Amino acid sequence: MIKRIPTKKIYVGDVAIGGDAPISTQSMTYSTTADVEETVEQIKRLHFAGCDIVRCAVTGEEDAYALKAIKEQVELPLVADIHFNHKLALIASEFVDCIRINPGNIGNKQKVAEVVKACQERNIPIRIGVNSGSLEKEFDNKYGQTAQGMVASAQYNIKYLEDLGFSDIKISLKASDVQRTVDAYRILRPKNNYPFHLGVTEAGTLFHATVKSSIGLGTLLLDGIGDTMRVSITGELEEEINVARAILKDSGAMPDGLNIISCPTCGRIEADLVSAVTEIEKRTAHIKTPLNVSVMGCVVNAIGEAAHADVAIAYGKGKGLVMVKGEVVANLDEKELVDRFVSEVEDMAKDAE
Amino acid sequence: MIKRIPTKKIYVGDVAIGGDAPISTQSMTYSTTADVEETVEQIKRLHFAGCDIVRCAVTGEEDAYALKAIKEQVELPLVADIHFNHKLALIASEFVDCIRINPGNIGNKQKVAEVVKACQERNIPIRIGVNSGSLEKEFDNKYGQTAQGMVASAQYNIKYLEDLGFSDIKISLKASDVQRTVDAYRILRPKNNYPFHLGVTEAGTLFHATVKSSIGLGTLLLDGIGDTMRVSITGELEEEINVARAILKDSGAMPDGLNIISCPTCGRIEADLVSAVTEIEKRTAHIKTPLNVSVMGCVVNAIGEAAHADVAIAYGKGKGLVMVKGEVVANLDEKELVDRFVSEVEDMAKDAE
Repeated sequence: MIKRIPTKKIYVGDVAIGGDAPISTQSMTYSTTADVEETVEQIKRLHFAGCDIVRCAVTGEEDAYALKAIKEQVELPLVADIHFNHKLALIASEFVDCIRINPGNIGNKQKVAEVVKACQERNIPIRIGVNSGSLEKEFDNKYGQTAQGMVASAQYNIKYLEDLGFSDIKISLKASDVQRTVDAYRILRPKNNYPFHLGVTEAGTLFHATVKSSIGLGTLLLDGIGDTMRVSITGELEEEINVARAILKDSGAMPDGLNIISCPTCGRIEADLVSAVTEIEKRTAHIKTPLNVSVMGCVVNAIGEAAHADVAIAYGKGKGLVMVKGEVVANLDEKELVDRFVSEVEDMAKDAE
Repeated sequence: MIKRIPTKKIYVGDVAIGGDAPISTQSMTYSTTADVEETVEQIKRLHFAGCDIVRCAVTGEEDAYALKAIKEQVELPLVADIHFNHKLALIASEFVDCIRINPGNIGNKQKVAEVVKACQERNIPIRIGVNSGSLEKEFDNKYGQTAQGMVASAQYNIKYLEDLGFSDIKISLKASDVQRTVDAYRILRPKNNYPFHLGVTEAGTLFHATVKSSIGLGTLLLDGIGDTMRVSITGELEEEINVARAILKDSGAMPDGLNIISCPTCGRIEADLVSAVTEIEKRTAHIKTPLNVSVMGCVVNAIGEAAHADVAIAYGKGKGLVMVKGEVVANLDEKELVDRFVSEVEDMAKDAE
């Protein structure tokens, strides 16, 4: 298991972030927030997809006031996303569970102080959401669009909030460049213990966003960095959650259901592995118990992987072995292997519940 | 740009690996290698998809001898993949550009010495391909399936080859677990300067293999580690190459065509960004010149990203700006933006050729 770097625990509604809390996933509605019906619908879709926290853009007073009716109709904690106009944060803070401000565009210190006061009174946290594409002028001039500039902006704003007696904070440092994103989080991590909200921003459409986010967020998770995260996709709501959960699972940060180890293309394979694994994925998608399983097409690594798998298939020519915890439990015709495998997996999941 | 850790340069056929050579992509045929026609067909598919080096499983003498006819019909360098039976390596070495042996299952030292002698005579390199699932018994007993065990196996075999006067070597350290894979390469990297062949093995079907490989290989590439790589997918040949190339591009290791920065879902977006970006992706897929472009749906980060982009669109309500190198070149109706954007990109790509 990955050893997470210890952080302070804060709460966005009833979702804990940091400390020993699970790493939560976030997304953002793309409706006009003032359209309460559509926004509630999107939040419910995200909830169903497994999202833990949802953020809504607040671009004007109508959006800000709409959050009241939205909040009454949804269960997920709400974050109001504020740029440019701090007054919208003052309104939204009455209704939501967290305020995200972008220090680069929220205006002068006095305005930030007003937002802090509103959040203090409501006892809700602030996300200091630094974006490489919209740094404060002073940091952009001094550092350009660099990790160092992002870190300088974050540190400046953390200190300002702390000086106001406010430490109910989480931090994000998002760039559209993967390396810059990773560097920024790595540089800032040792300098405080606030929880980090991870994200590579503006990562493009599904395929490249999946690859960019997996590289950036995965690298940080392997370092033990990251307490909550959003995958940014030019695409649909559910895609962001699916990819976020896959990154958490496949990095080893948050085991979830079956981790399937299966052979790549290779001339040694003695079965239609693609069909078998695809069928197994479908038939076990409902299982939440973390299990390591292997479905291997030849003898090279099959026994080695099976020895460490909860349940395994090792294919031979026209037949194969089903193994449980390294022990052979059945030697069957190829056609019977997937059925037996799935039933062993279901039994094990039931026992673990 | 990522700073690569310097390595020795070797050659697999005419493809350089290590040193200042581009990071090459590899895959493996899944035909029975003895089926020359099908194997040649698959190698040609891989070549067309952008693969640099191809590997064929050699499971018996028929496979080994078939490599002669295969080699005569293809342009890509060939690697023979040998397990268990070192005699197959002796035959295959006559025809191929590299031999991969798995030290964990090739047998005793004398057998390895014979393979080394054959490769010395033919002046072809050896890949020491350590797999976590098939370590030598002594290392498995001492370390279990750990990064330390994989590194110990690699070091033992490197030393043995060096003692025989052979240093035309590349190394892989593959595990099905992402963290273990990353740890193994990181531990071994400072201990020698041989080029590394990266891979997370048995990574599953397309989606999870993409995520696992992006995390594992991306993390290493950001560290400057990696000279050639294979993405392992329980799936089709072309998928392995597509994902490998995306990881190289999206990590920043090997810029290739358009790097598209585009907004995620958000209530601020004032256009149908998904359609626009999807259309742009299709219409610019043929461009190989590395360009950074941004397609942004609102003002928050649009200008900041555009300032650093080669070509950019910043959408407003019903219209938007096209920007080139940070300068506005057109203020157009929404319907005209993609056309103008694509034509600016094409001009810039033509100038760069």
